[in-house]
Amino acid sequence: MRTLDVALGARAYPIHIGAGIFDNAELILPYLKRPRVAIVTNELVGPLYLGRLQAALDAAGVASTAIVLPDGEANKNWETLNLIFSGLLEARCERSVTLIALGGGVVGDMTGFAAACYQRGVPFIQVPTTLLSQVDSSVGGKTAINHPLGKNMIGAFYQPRLVLADVSTLRTLPIRELRAGLAEVIKHALIRDAARMDWLEQHIDGLLACDEDLLAEAVEWNCRIKATVVAADETEQGERAHLNLGHTFGHAIETGMGYGEYLHGEAVAAGVVMAAQLSAQLGMLPEADVERIRRLFQRAGLPVQGPKLGVERYLDLMRHDKKVADGRLRLILLRRIGEAVISEAASQAEIELAIASCCV
Amino acid sequence: MRTLDVALGARAYPIHIGAGIFDNAELILPYLKRPRVAIVTNELVGPLYLGRLQAALDAAGVASTAIVLPDGEANKNWETLNLIFSGLLEARCERSVTLIALGGGVVGDMTGFAAACYQRGVPFIQVPTTLLSQVDSSVGGKTAINHPLGKNMIGAFYQPRLVLADVSTLRTLPIRELRAGLAEVIKHALIRDAARMDWLEQHIDGLLACDEDLLAEAVEWNCRIKATVVAADETEQGERAHLNLGHTFGHAIETGMGYGEYLHGEAVAAGVVMAAQLSAQLGMLPEADVERIRRLFQRAGLPVQGPKLGVERYLDLMRHDKKVADGRLRLILLRRIGEAVISEAASQAEIELAIASCCV
Repeated sequence: MRTLDVALGARAYPIHIGAGIFDNAELILPYLKRPRVAIVTNELVGPLYLGRLQAALDAAGVASTAIVLPDGEANKNWETLNLIFSGLLEARCERSVTLIALGGGVVGDMTGFAAACYQRGVPFIQVPTTLLSQVDSSVGGKTAINHPLGKNMIGAFYQPRLVLADVSTLRTLPIRELRAGLAEVIKHALIRDAARMDWLEQHIDGLLACDEDLLAEAVEWNCRIKATVVAADETEQGERAHLNLGHTFGHAIETGMGYGEYLHGEAVAAGVVMAAQLSAQLGMLPEADVERIRRLFQRAGLPVQGPKLGVERYLDLMRHDKKVADGRLRLILLRRIGEAVISEAASQAEIELAIASCCV
Repeated sequence: MRTLDVALGARAYPIHIGAGIFDNAELILPYLKRPRVAIVTNELVGPLYLGRLQAALDAAGVASTAIVLPDGEANKNWETLNLIFSGLLEARCERSVTLIALGGGVVGDMTGFAAACYQRGVPFIQVPTTLLSQVDSSVGGKTAINHPLGKNMIGAFYQPRLVLADVSTLRTLPIRELRAGLAEVIKHALIRDAARMDWLEQHIDGLLACDEDLLAEAVEWNCRIKATVVAADETEQGERAHLNLGHTFGHAIETGMGYGEYLHGEAVAAGVVMAAQLSAQLGMLPEADVERIRRLFQRAGLPVQGPKLGVERYLDLMRHDKKVADGRLRLILLRRIGEAVISEAASQAEIELAIASCCV
């Protein structure tokens, strides 16, 4: 088992990473105020892992209530959040209860937000069961639900007390979701760590085959990168924006195609290629590096081209996503592999060209 | 104008107290990130003060959106909260917007909670227009909504950037609500400041007649007491519980009679008398002081006896309200006028006797 400490002062917490650790009650016990938890999961993950976790907690003398939510981003709303509050109140959970999020990003976002609000704040523990949530949502403290008028519009910055990232749960993950999680892993290498890009090129096949040691190393290293960035900028004023490499293009793809058509990681992969292409056009990144990035995403089974929405529609959607300063979009670009920059250097014509050259 | 600084480290903020200050844009401007606010108010307060506030902000170059909620505790729920989120999103308010709560405790609680959650947190300013909210909700950072299964179950500790307590708005307050606000003022004197009890006995008629100087002094002093208690115990672990003098009895009255029958302050007044009576029974407080407390509440037009619910019903409701340790209720009692204590000294029989001797 590997352990990483996320340093956030009074809100510091450990991430344990390993195989077969999620039902190790001894890892959880030190973080409970009282032996009373509520486990929030969903209809897909519950049948796979809920019983094991409850049995382990029960054996350790911890009483647990299970709250099973419907699956999917479409349910990341108030009505589903309220199922958590109702479940907690019906089970007479007091302020000393600890919530455990058992599932992917949606379960984690909603459980974290419920923990932030229930009786004005109770502790919570994350047990992420997807690669994306292990490398992405475990660090950062962002919790939220969607509003009909906007994604993630209602939420809180709220840190977990503990994260248990069990890579053995990735064996039950659909391969398409594993690939989408790898998109974020590759993105993290691109913004901060050129040597890790070499490592990923060397081990991409093993990662796709769910080699647990490789996955654990990738998850640990990703959480470390993200923790460094977040600790330096907890409420997202500056360099945390680097994590959004490819996201402005990617959000345009997601929104333009309708949510659900592209997985987030798939849209990010295509978006990162567009950002890399644009960086090359501006003379910041060698063309060969764009090719190298494209090649790694392809090997990971991820899209390297966006859908043909038309460049005007792309720009429209991108302008909605981000604030425009003097008509110029603020984008995350690459100065080299391993170094991201915030830039308003690209003109509209250059952005259009990059999009056009990266569309099917 | 009087100014009190609530010392909460990085979350410190000033409370300005005076007559005719709520539409002084110069007091507000220094606290805005951008000249863009959303004013949340209700159907009763809006027609009285919204126009003046918007006109003043407009003259100062601040764009404002108004969100008018239905009135009353029954609407302190998710549906009404969502009216705030929808209003903010429809007006395309960004993370740089500042919310202004213009109204009583319900508007303040909901606006504060909306501010805590909108885009994971935006600043807010309180303009409390009832005596209760000026002396009570302006300090403490408690925000919340009700859940069908419990009051104030969903919320956050979230501090305003600024409070403008304008005592001239109390002229439009129904006299019954003014009296209910005075119940909290008297309670604060009883738990912390014996000299203030003398002052209140001297000036109770002037306060009821809405003398602005007297009201401003009472509000300032009350906020100061509460700020001291809260700063010492922001998340309610210890002495902040003193503020709950009379509340365990009072909540039993409110719940037993059905919400809305007794105003919160009215139930607290009767509850404080019960707590004082019990303190006297236990030999902690002279009987003459109980009489003195009773007399002041009577002069303020507040109830000094509870409804005849039956002592068993009272105890039932009180046990639901608070945790029971070894069968003994944890209550706030008075050691003398000006000094509250947390005590589990009272037996059930003694509590029953105190209730019986204070019921109509």
